[in-house]
Amino acid sequence: MTRIVYVNGRYLPHRSAAVHVEDRGYQFADGVYEVIAVERGRLVDAGPHLTRLARSLKELSIAQPMSDAALRHVMGEVVRRNRVRRGILYLQVTRGVAPRSHAFPDGATPSLVVMARSIPPADPATAERGCDVITVPDIRWKRCDIKTVSLLPNVLAKQQAKDAGAFEALQVDAEGFVTEGSAANAWIISQAGVLVTRPADHAILDGVTRRSVMALAAEAGIEVEERPFTVAEAKAAAEAFLTGTTALVMPVVRIDGTPVGGGTPGPFSLRLLADYTARAADGGGAL
Amino acid sequence: MTRIVYVNGRYLPHRSAAVHVEDRGYQFADGVYEVIAVERGRLVDAGPHLTRLARSLKELSIAQPMSDAALRHVMGEVVRRNRVRRGILYLQVTRGVAPRSHAFPDGATPSLVVMARSIPPADPATAERGCDVITVPDIRWKRCDIKTVSLLPNVLAKQQAKDAGAFEALQVDAEGFVTEGSAANAWIISQAGVLVTRPADHAILDGVTRRSVMALAAEAGIEVEERPFTVAEAKAAAEAFLTGTTALVMPVVRIDGTPVGGGTPGPFSLRLLADYTARAADGGGAL
Repeated sequence: MTRIVYVNGRYLPHRSAAVHVEDRGYQFADGVYEVIAVERGRLVDAGPHLTRLARSLKELSIAQPMSDAALRHVMGEVVRRNRVRRGILYLQVTRGVAPRSHAFPDGATPSLVVMARSIPPADPATAERGCDVITVPDIRWKRCDIKTVSLLPNVLAKQQAKDAGAFEALQVDAEGFVTEGSAANAWIISQAGVLVTRPADHAILDGVTRRSVMALAAEAGIEVEERPFTVAEAKAAAEAFLTGTTALVMPVVRIDGTPVGGGTPGPFSLRLLADYTARAADGGGAL
Repeated sequence: MTRIVYVNGRYLPHRSAAVHVEDRGYQFADGVYEVIAVERGRLVDAGPHLTRLARSLKELSIAQPMSDAALRHVMGEVVRRNRVRRGILYLQVTRGVAPRSHAFPDGATPSLVVMARSIPPADPATAERGCDVITVPDIRWKRCDIKTVSLLPNVLAKQQAKDAGAFEALQVDAEGFVTEGSAANAWIISQAGVLVTRPADHAILDGVTRRSVMALAAEAGIEVEERPFTVAEAKAAAEAFLTGTTALVMPVVRIDGTPVGGGTPGPFSLRLLADYTARAADGGGAL
């Protein structure tokens, strides 16, 4: 549970953490966010997350709410005041408060909200079981590379997964290629042992965990190929998994009910999970 | 200026009208809205707006925040307390407040925000001048028929128009057909005098003003054809115009710099504007 939330300059009790009804995040989804893991009280890969945040803001012409140094200070305070040893930090920046009108308002000050909460350590049994995913048409906009709060299609995809008793929904583009999950990147390992994931085009988010796993695969001598893959290819793959700040490296054992790799997590997936977990425990930093 | 805002059961001064940072409208764009015109202190076409609101909520499996009768009471109070004779009312419903997680939360109570503000009477000279529009690729999601607050692409399109010195941006789909503006439906009148507008498929919002204009055109004996049209067709049209709660019926006189219909508003557009304005002054109600 989050106890203290940073909202536009103040550290507030959770119950009174509020933003104005004319905040453009509320009326227009005109904002961006980051979710950062916390391990041993330290932010994991804060650098790459802040770099991506800066890119998202730039793509939308939203000003930085404060310097990276000041932002790191606020994030550290939020982690500390919520006594998070292991958990996640959520940070959101919007274009600010202005009378409702679509075009960018003149002189609005960006809003900044930062919160953090503890989460229990990952249960190793979860990864050992792996997860089921379903596939759904990707109905999102064409700039999924920007990490915006315009997440309604992701919400609907995740809910479809939940309704189907699955962990995630792989979104599939009009050409039949997998883009990504609702809150995670998608990967397969081909029968030839090649790790395949979609290139970071405008159709997916270039995940920080995605990049870490790519680096770890290279270190482990696993060949990585960035190219789109189809649902059929994923079903026929040796292994499949998802990556994300909260999903970490999650083996996929069934796609629309079809077992992948015999229906149990494969060795490469579990190796990458172990490597990723070890790296995160050290605070990340390879990037 | 809005003075009083209804927020979840309370009528608050504008400055303290706030929603929780974990309201799903803020973190996921998980909500819908309506904008309703006010004329002579009365809501115009409240019925069709509430019908559409109910449909939007149903499509997203968000519960109605209250009965239509109660909602009408709140809307009336907001108009009255803000002393709006002529203006607009803005109403937003979100899935409510819950700890951040993509899937629908259990037991969240929908949030309801209602505000209203006066706007000066439309300057007849504005419609007589008409407006410039630009064209931009439609990068939005595939369910634009639902009136959600997931409006970031609309914001970006409107800003592109503003940067180009234009009033609106016509969004164009992958096949080269116009979908709609960032906050208005798009229409042309062919050289043969036929009124053409895109059918209300999943690519556009089925505007309340759109329906009114369709009914008014029928009353005026103008033939209406619901079919997609291209940018080239629009540029070669006899007339073009936009419709929306705030745009009313706005003649388009240039598309990407190309004059339409000689570069001045045409007779059909001005006739429909006059008919629409007269109807709105009576509180709507034809629908």
